[in-house]
Amino acid sequence: MREVARTRFSGAAGAESSDRVAREEPLEIQVNGARLAVVMRTPGDDLDLVAGFLVTERIVASFGEIAALHHASAGDAERADNVVRATLASGAPFDADRLRRNLFASSSCGVCGKATLEQALATAPPLAEGARFAAAFFSALPARLREAQRVFDATGGLHAAALFGAGGEMLCVREDVGRHNAVDKVIGWAARNAHLPLTDCALLVSGRVSFEIVQKALAARVPAIAALSAPSSLAVELAERAGMALVAFLRGESMSVYGARERVIGVT
Amino acid sequence: MREVARTRFSGAAGAESSDRVAREEPLEIQVNGARLAVVMRTPGDDLDLVAGFLVTERIVASFGEIAALHHASAGDAERADNVVRATLASGAPFDADRLRRNLFASSSCGVCGKATLEQALATAPPLAEGARFAAAFFSALPARLREAQRVFDATGGLHAAALFGAGGEMLCVREDVGRHNAVDKVIGWAARNAHLPLTDCALLVSGRVSFEIVQKALAARVPAIAALSAPSSLAVELAERAGMALVAFLRGESMSVYGARERVIGVT
Repeated sequence: MREVARTRFSGAAGAESSDRVAREEPLEIQVNGARLAVVMRTPGDDLDLVAGFLVTERIVASFGEIAALHHASAGDAERADNVVRATLASGAPFDADRLRRNLFASSSCGVCGKATLEQALATAPPLAEGARFAAAFFSALPARLREAQRVFDATGGLHAAALFGAGGEMLCVREDVGRHNAVDKVIGWAARNAHLPLTDCALLVSGRVSFEIVQKALAARVPAIAALSAPSSLAVELAERAGMALVAFLRGESMSVYGARERVIGVT
Repeated sequence: MREVARTRFSGAAGAESSDRVAREEPLEIQVNGARLAVVMRTPGDDLDLVAGFLVTERIVASFGEIAALHHASAGDAERADNVVRATLASGAPFDADRLRRNLFASSSCGVCGKATLEQALATAPPLAEGARFAAAFFSALPARLREAQRVFDATGGLHAAALFGAGGEMLCVREDVGRHNAVDKVIGWAARNAHLPLTDCALLVSGRVSFEIVQKALAARVPAIAALSAPSSLAVELAERAGMALVAFLRGESMSVYGARERVIGVT
């Protein structure tokens, strides 16, 4: 959090005060000594963020391909705390252009939702059947997320993501100014603690669910993603194709389930 | 909107139904025949989106550098409705690597918030003094945005951005699955209708305000940005340095003003 000057109005009368806002700083990600990307993020859990980014963007095929991961040392970079260096295991294929292709190139068969889905499923195939969850499992998650969010209440400016085990226990929660970063941080935490693949876990996000959020969850093999807000059409379509349950509009005991709906069991 | 299958739970009993979700599709942006970027967006107002993207990402120095802007024709691309082609005016400098540098490269003086701010201000200098707004001006905006949002109520999945004139009239409102896209669409609309620079307008966004949203507004010379939710630290710092008023947590008559606070006038 950072203290900033502000004028607070309630009606027409303004009053000077200070306020706390969520920190946002650039983070440079280096792989094998080359600059790969700069992301805007909330400082903290940077190694989790980079591990998750490399796994969910499929820069590495598995976390095991990352041999070393650390911040730059103070003598090497002016703002060493804003630079993280990954070294890949000897022999691990690294294609620096892969990320550029992901961001800038469309599939050779054309730019459309179908091609985008097929591209996503080519690098991360559909999930195995198996993991199922009671509807009541999801109803309990938002309250646990709110309890765990320390910073959110103070600044109102952070997105959150949390990982839950099959018994409903919260394994990890992370917050960030960026929605994608919060997801990368929890998946990176799982990667660094040898919890991948997340075949019996559920991922909760505080906002909306876009295609890219589902794609990241799929890379970590998460069978169910839950959200407080709405999904997009392509998020639903990828969840359908990938065999992932997508639970949205999670409010108390009510929710809407898309995608692999058979993974969510009610009482009939 | 797209119809999708869902299971709706209220308590433990699930019921099958269909639901409408916000459409998300990739859009390929070509400049002078070369593929520049693929963005995930809600289809519609694509030419506004691309015009705004090129202006706010500083791919062109002004909208006048874009000589032609149109969708691909049906014979040229498999999904011509997902491809937009821009042709720059003869003599307009076009550096295809500029966007890559914006996304992937950090300033030569190091990766930190300060360098990021200086980089932003180098391509879009601080705003002139002048435009001021009564606090009551902003209080009236959210209700007008809600009235204008046709799709939002149906799917709950879209971000909105709206442009208001000095008299409080709504000039343009756009919605998108992507926060940045909604801003690019309204700024692109302004560019295509010869309303740039927006030196006496205010921009309202439905969500949070990050650094990149302020950077886009600055490129269009907007003196005031308003948001229903929270700002980040770097958004506040760029607003301070650029002379832009940043109004956040806009709820009824109450709001918090950051950045160029002197632009917002109460009654004392």
